[in-house]
Amino acid sequence: VDETASPAGAPLSLYRTRVRPEWLDYNGHMSEAFYVLVFGYTTDALLDEIGMDAARRELSHTSVYTLEGHICYLAEVRADEHLRVTTQVLDLDHKRARIFHEMFRGEGDERVATEELLLCNVDTRASRSAPFAEDVAGALRSFRDAHRDLPVDERVGRAIRLPEGR
Amino acid sequence: VDETASPAGAPLSLYRTRVRPEWLDYNGHMSEAFYVLVFGYTTDALLDEIGMDAARRELSHTSVYTLEGHICYLAEVRADEHLRVTTQVLDLDHKRARIFHEMFRGEGDERVATEELLLCNVDTRASRSAPFAEDVAGALRSFRDAHRDLPVDERVGRAIRLPEGR
Repeated sequence: VDETASPAGAPLSLYRTRVRPEWLDYNGHMSEAFYVLVFGYTTDALLDEIGMDAARRELSHTSVYTLEGHICYLAEVRADEHLRVTTQVLDLDHKRARIFHEMFRGEGDERVATEELLLCNVDTRASRSAPFAEDVAGALRSFRDAHRDLPVDERVGRAIRLPEGR
Repeated sequence: VDETASPAGAPLSLYRTRVRPEWLDYNGHMSEAFYVLVFGYTTDALLDEIGMDAARRELSHTSVYTLEGHICYLAEVRADEHLRVTTQVLDLDHKRARIFHEMFRGEGDERVATEELLLCNVDTRASRSAPFAEDVAGALRSFRDAHRDLPVDERVGRAIRLPEGR
C-alpha cells in the first residue's frame, strides 16, 4: 500500500449558482422544480466534461436524455443563497450512466438536496438510444473508476417508501 | 356482488396546462425541471382538494412539503401541447402521504411522464413535521380507499438501476 498515493478521487465539483428570485415559491423558498433545474445544469456541465458539449451534440446528432430521476429534498434555500453541486459517476453500460448529484449550501458541508439520475445516449435523428462514442464512454469509465471507492450515500438505489414509526 | 356498483374510483383528474415557450430547452423540448413544475402544480391542486388550500396553509401555519420524488421521463413534449395530470393516492400515515402523478399528452392515453412523491405535513412555525389535521387525514384516507383497487404502475416503489441487457 502506497500511503502517499492520492485518494481515489473526490466527486466532481461541476456547478455553482445563486438562487434567483423567479425560482421561489410564495413562502420565499426555492420551489422543487428549480432544484431539478440546477441539477440539470450540473448534468450539462458533466456532458461538457466528457466531451459531449452542445456543439458536439448538435454536430453528431446525439444527445443525452434523462430517463429517470430520484430527488431528495433535505433543506430549504432562499433568494440569493449560493449553491454548489458535486457529481459522482456510479455506474454505466454501453449507452447509459447512473450518476449522483449532491447540492450544498454555500461553501459548507450542509446538503440541501440530492438527485440520482439515469442518463441515456440518444441518436436524435433516429429518435432512439445508441451507444456512447468511444471517447465519451472512456471519459465516463475514468470517472466511474475514480469514484469507485467513494462512500455511496444511503439514498442511492433506494425506492420511495413510507418510513416505519415516526 | 353488486354488478351495478360504480368502480372503486379512478385516479383524480386534477390539473391541465399547456406547454409554455419558457419551459423549452434549445432543442424545443420541455426541460426536465418543468415536468416537475407541472407535477408540483398538480400537488397544489391535490392540496386544494383535501382542504389544505393556500389560505388555510397560511392561517394554520401548516404546509405540505415534498420529501422525495421519483420521476420517469417517457416522451418529449413541445411548445403549446396540452398536458393533463392524474393522481393516485397510494398510501399514508399520520403525517405523510405517498402519491403517484401521471402526465398525459392532450386528451389521449399517451403518458409523457410519471412521478411518485413522498409528501409530509409540516408545522411551519416550528419548522418540523406534524400530524395532518383530522379532516385532511380523512380526505386523504377516502382517496386512498377509493384508489386501493386501481392498478399500481410498475414504476411505483421502484429504485433506479441500469437495466440488464440492452
